[in-house]
Amino acid sequence: MDNSESDFTDFTIGIIGLGLMGGSYAKALKNAGVQHIIGIDKNLQTVEQALAENLIETGDICGDDALKNADLLIFCLPASDMIAFIHQYQTNFKSDAILTDIAGIKGDTIHIIQQLLCHEMDFIPGHPMAGREGSGLSQSDASIFRGANYILIPQKKNKIENIRLIGRIAKEIGCGHVIQVTAEEHDRMIAYTSSLPHVVATALVNSNSMDVRTKYFVAGSFRDGTRVADINARLWTQLFMENKKNLLEEINRFKNSLEDFTELLVNSDKDKMMEYLEKAAVRRRELTRGKHTC
Amino acid sequence: MDNSESDFTDFTIGIIGLGLMGGSYAKALKNAGVQHIIGIDKNLQTVEQALAENLIETGDICGDDALKNADLLIFCLPASDMIAFIHQYQTNFKSDAILTDIAGIKGDTIHIIQQLLCHEMDFIPGHPMAGREGSGLSQSDASIFRGANYILIPQKKNKIENIRLIGRIAKEIGCGHVIQVTAEEHDRMIAYTSSLPHVVATALVNSNSMDVRTKYFVAGSFRDGTRVADINARLWTQLFMENKKNLLEEINRFKNSLEDFTELLVNSDKDKMMEYLEKAAVRRRELTRGKHTC
Repeated sequence: MDNSESDFTDFTIGIIGLGLMGGSYAKALKNAGVQHIIGIDKNLQTVEQALAENLIETGDICGDDALKNADLLIFCLPASDMIAFIHQYQTNFKSDAILTDIAGIKGDTIHIIQQLLCHEMDFIPGHPMAGREGSGLSQSDASIFRGANYILIPQKKNKIENIRLIGRIAKEIGCGHVIQVTAEEHDRMIAYTSSLPHVVATALVNSNSMDVRTKYFVAGSFRDGTRVADINARLWTQLFMENKKNLLEEINRFKNSLEDFTELLVNSDKDKMMEYLEKAAVRRRELTRGKHTC
Repeated sequence: MDNSESDFTDFTIGIIGLGLMGGSYAKALKNAGVQHIIGIDKNLQTVEQALAENLIETGDICGDDALKNADLLIFCLPASDMIAFIHQYQTNFKSDAILTDIAGIKGDTIHIIQQLLCHEMDFIPGHPMAGREGSGLSQSDASIFRGANYILIPQKKNKIENIRLIGRIAKEIGCGHVIQVTAEEHDRMIAYTSSLPHVVATALVNSNSMDVRTKYFVAGSFRDGTRVADINARLWTQLFMENKKNLLEEINRFKNSLEDFTELLVNSDKDKMMEYLEKAAVRRRELTRGKHTC
């Protein structure tokens, strides 16, 4: 079967992990017309909730039997749990199942899974740049994919039609741009565009200046700048640690940029500060318009 | 007249400065039922645009004659321009006119204006914690006040009914909470809740890591965290410089908070990092819910 042109809405799709991301996938795939969605979550209550809300057709708490008809498996689990799940249950997958994931940091994960997989299974690593505050199925929302960037990290072994398939599904659930990079490049870029803003947001609210009256003085700048400080602490501790080297580099570069500003303030250098801020304004506008050239 | 209970929609209100904020006031006051709005802007084209859009009843490029019937004057100008305007034109104001402003940093402004004012005029300093990206009348939007904090900085000389009036107008245009503080407290709080997030946002996009491909890797965290980096460089350079001492203190406290995180990362201290992030999550949630207690 040439999956690059096939209608994926006929696929049976298994989603492993029905948290914020897994639940959002289920909702978005349903909206895109997929009829057969299998949901797996170790928490029985979560599976029952997903069934009650009609997000999945069938569900289970493990991969013993439930995934045997799944053409595509989407892993919405922390990387270590994904590896453990594949190790334990892959003999129960279809022999030509396509696998993809959403792990925020790639590290060695891809290599480990490639070594692990048997038969004709094909693992296409992915990372939708989508999310929202909080965690869990109740926070899931199909709209998080709307206009989002979707990063694919294709491997030499991957079938070209399967890479295209994952890209096409990304577009169908609402993503704006699909880009392909290496795992190393992915982790380096993500340290700047995702991990760093989370670190900065938490550092802002953890400043000693926060007190009981702060809430009466906040404006949109503080609200937006700290939105992601309402963070899933366990998940992000893991992501930060897995990408330690890149993240430390990004924190340093950010500190240097902040130091440039601070020096201008200390020296009351109005002209240079205007230049600094104007540069930021131009960069931000070009980023939004997709015309960044510096 | 006891303004605390009077219907301000019968007032003739003068707005001096028809930029983003002045234009937003005109739109919001109109929505609240105010019929007589006078608009002043040194730029004739801006005045004509406001007239054409029916945001103001009459308009002018100076205060020679236009404001003589205004019961309330709202200054939406940089502090130095406001002082110059009052100095030049106050003999043409009503003798019992009520004045208010929106200057982001108070510094000596209040004292200077109090010294300047003659007759029975009453200046109630204010600061709506509202705004949006960009500048100019075309960017103005009545909805920026929705749910916003509104800070009043009442002075001993102020009539209590006039303080109440400004607070009531703030609520009528959509603001969520009105708080009263001293000028010193205002400037100290604002350095944390408004200036600092602007500095952090510009430092994020001015990092050396920004390049032509960044746009394909950004997620909501980067987008929201840098929204205000699309900054009015001239205005904010002035605001930062006027509040230099407080802002330097806030940058230092933020740096300490960021350093706390960085140490945990360097030491791979997962447990303490989870605590750090959980503290941030709790603070952010309580901030939003208005229940912050730490």
